[in-house]
Amino acid sequence: MDTTQIGVIGLGVMGSNLALNLSDKGFSLSVYNRTYSLTDQFMREHAQGREIRSAETLEEFVNQLGSPRTVLLMITAGRAVDAVIGQLLPLLSPGDIIIDGGNSNYKDTNRRWQELTEKGIRFVGMGISGGEEGARHGPSMMPGGNVDAWPDIRTMFQKAAAQVDGEACCQWLGEGGSGHYVKMVHNGIEYGDMQLIAEACHLMQHALGMDFDAMADTFAAWNKGKLESYLVEITSEILRHKDVDGSPLVTKILDRAGQKGTGLWTAQDALEHTVPLTLITEAVHARMLSARKDERVNAAKLLGGSAEPVPAEQHQAYLDAIHDALYASKLVSYAQGFMLMQTAAQEYGWNLAYGDIALLWRAGCIIRSRFLGDIKASFEREPVPQNLLQDPFFVGEMKQAEAGWRKTVALAVMQGVPAPALFSALSFYDGYRCAEGSANILQAQRDYFGAHTYQRTDRDPTLAFHTHWSGDGSEEQTS
Amino acid sequence: MDTTQIGVIGLGVMGSNLALNLSDKGFSLSVYNRTYSLTDQFMREHAQGREIRSAETLEEFVNQLGSPRTVLLMITAGRAVDAVIGQLLPLLSPGDIIIDGGNSNYKDTNRRWQELTEKGIRFVGMGISGGEEGARHGPSMMPGGNVDAWPDIRTMFQKAAAQVDGEACCQWLGEGGSGHYVKMVHNGIEYGDMQLIAEACHLMQHALGMDFDAMADTFAAWNKGKLESYLVEITSEILRHKDVDGSPLVTKILDRAGQKGTGLWTAQDALEHTVPLTLITEAVHARMLSARKDERVNAAKLLGGSAEPVPAEQHQAYLDAIHDALYASKLVSYAQGFMLMQTAAQEYGWNLAYGDIALLWRAGCIIRSRFLGDIKASFEREPVPQNLLQDPFFVGEMKQAEAGWRKTVALAVMQGVPAPALFSALSFYDGYRCAEGSANILQAQRDYFGAHTYQRTDRDPTLAFHTHWSGDGSEEQTS
Repeated sequence: MDTTQIGVIGLGVMGSNLALNLSDKGFSLSVYNRTYSLTDQFMREHAQGREIRSAETLEEFVNQLGSPRTVLLMITAGRAVDAVIGQLLPLLSPGDIIIDGGNSNYKDTNRRWQELTEKGIRFVGMGISGGEEGARHGPSMMPGGNVDAWPDIRTMFQKAAAQVDGEACCQWLGEGGSGHYVKMVHNGIEYGDMQLIAEACHLMQHALGMDFDAMADTFAAWNKGKLESYLVEITSEILRHKDVDGSPLVTKILDRAGQKGTGLWTAQDALEHTVPLTLITEAVHARMLSARKDERVNAAKLLGGSAEPVPAEQHQAYLDAIHDALYASKLVSYAQGFMLMQTAAQEYGWNLAYGDIALLWRAGCIIRSRFLGDIKASFEREPVPQNLLQDPFFVGEMKQAEAGWRKTVALAVMQGVPAPALFSALSFYDGYRCAEGSANILQAQRDYFGAHTYQRTDRDPTLAFHTHWSGDGSEEQTS
Repeated sequence: MDTTQIGVIGLGVMGSNLALNLSDKGFSLSVYNRTYSLTDQFMREHAQGREIRSAETLEEFVNQLGSPRTVLLMITAGRAVDAVIGQLLPLLSPGDIIIDGGNSNYKDTNRRWQELTEKGIRFVGMGISGGEEGARHGPSMMPGGNVDAWPDIRTMFQKAAAQVDGEACCQWLGEGGSGHYVKMVHNGIEYGDMQLIAEACHLMQHALGMDFDAMADTFAAWNKGKLESYLVEITSEILRHKDVDGSPLVTKILDRAGQKGTGLWTAQDALEHTVPLTLITEAVHARMLSARKDERVNAAKLLGGSAEPVPAEQHQAYLDAIHDALYASKLVSYAQGFMLMQTAAQEYGWNLAYGDIALLWRAGCIIRSRFLGDIKASFEREPVPQNLLQDPFFVGEMKQAEAGWRKTVALAVMQGVPAPALFSALSFYDGYRCAEGSANILQAQRDYFGAHTYQRTDRDPTLAFHTHWSGDGSEEQTS
């Protein structure tokens, strides 16, 4: 029998769909699943007429692979990945490639990359986004790890990936856990985008008093403009979807959001790297608050009540404002996400190509949007702006959106509609463009009660000063 | 020579001041510092006429202590604590007491408590707040760990602590690292209070165009009412303080805030415990943004500009509104802090007395305020409200403050003044009192792209449903 070009371990939805995708693109493969019945079912349902071989044991599976072997793990992140790697190691040879295509924490990937590099195995951590559909027909893939593996796997995954403007949404990102890191930030941004859309819906429903079909129409219209994106598109469909009794299905869906952890990881990582990732963090907190349903119901009885919705003749003006608020807030969130990646890249020594990241999010993944094309363009400028919020194109966009953004946030404020992500975006924007912020007050307080010292604007910033606030009021230079 | 009642290791500012405080209250003590010159200096400057003995070696120091020995560590948190404990262990006997009075991470305290309990040492982790002045004349102290130590140390520390209404700001908190945990949350709340005050100052300065003496007068007036607190008091003094050239000193202080980590720990801990601690987290992020001074200066050139300040005849109405915004936001922050402590207590099995926590923050520490008396009263109600925001007294206060709060946030929105903590407090409040939030949209999106399922409001909440959104639109029950 012929050897195969790649082996896939794990035949859950993502694993089997990606296997079929690779097969569609003309690559021969071997498949293995810990529970053989799943392998059996996969073979019966899908393998006919394809170059797919199955194996009951890992030994058999590894022996089917052409040399150097390429093994793609599509299994649950965590200990299972270490366990399977441990089982594979005695069967592999130096130069073989292991790709972890699961949702692994990048710190685990950093560690595995180090351990496997020492053993001569070329290890790749590859984030994959796009859900079931993406995996089957073209996901966004974020590979990082051992760059020596890239020439051997590049063609295969670039063919399987989503394509945009003739380029594949699969580009090499960098060393170690950089691929899973970028995927983590992708997911954090996804949390932010979803929360912003949910807040826009809530404003339409409660501050404007719109019905769900009108809301669906609005999102459908937005999906033809600057906000064109997968999440805006599906939100339109969701809002229009009717339950069996003809009422909008969303009104029957419980307002408690689950989380699988990658948004939380992103928020935690931002704190660890001292990056003010306010919007995604508010989105994570909003999900946590949503989980306290009983408490909210009790609180509503005591503190509830809202203003009259805005009259219908003002709706269009407000909808335009909400559109601009969504757009500007989204930009703040992406700017924060790229700030985080830049900080992490510096710490871990990754040479991330930010334009490529924008490109590979441009299609295939959950946050795919027209807007990412503009972000890609920003990273192609010379010199690259210090921050997306300083990019000439986006500066113009922000100035255009600003009035509507403020009008939207003021609407939420006066109507009592919760909009934590919209609020945090605006306060970040105002803080970011503030050359002289209020932290001088904090520094004075810290110096007052804890002698923590401060710097002076009119002196060398390496000098520290302390005032004897409650003493004789004099100032001393302390360093 | 007589034995002494307690030994203090570490004669930095906090250690020596607390030693003198204990001495003032009539307790005899031994002191030790790794660098003997500091011990020598302390003895020369302070020991005359006091029952204070010094030691050059740890052996000598331990031998001076009466049995069971009580050793108070006042050293830098981290490895140094483990190192000194390691040096002490061979010199101590079962039943002896070690108290860590530094700013240790509660997870370290949990670990040390476990290790030392196994060795028969009674270990106490005690958070201390109040800065140098507090340590000298009466700090707030938060002891937790081995409760068997409490009877032996109670009198000593309750006498040294700040007193309020005849009670000591030093009460036993619970097992393990609970004392340092409560101290950590205290510090997080301190970050939030400081940020809120800084935002109020910024609004007064930029949205109202007030001068610093008028701002100082406002804070001084506020310190006679509901906002009476140490931080409001010192802010008034800070705003009034003049540089040598007669200009307000704060205008010369660089707006880059430092952090020593406990605010960050609190934000991280909230994420870990899935508690939406939005305000403190925004305060931590605001300090991070403040550190990006150069970037802000560049951004201001591109995106800067602000509205005309509000005319003087409207100032008083706006100041009243800012007062109410500060008060209501502070309540949100404390409510979040207590939510966090309640969640952690459940996880770690601590039986925290929340009324006592409010009591021991009531005086001596940085966040001391009149307001904490009302919080204490809330925890004395039967039954205790589910949340401070559901307390009948505070419900009335919130309703009274709400209009001014919204007016203040709207002012910041329209004037472009960054107010992340005020914003996050209001959006949390509106989310908290929202019986039907927008997370139904999130759940629909998650089910659409990832088949994550949702619950229905009209069905048993243990059941999960999935809609074939882009397929035939049908719904299936999945569990």
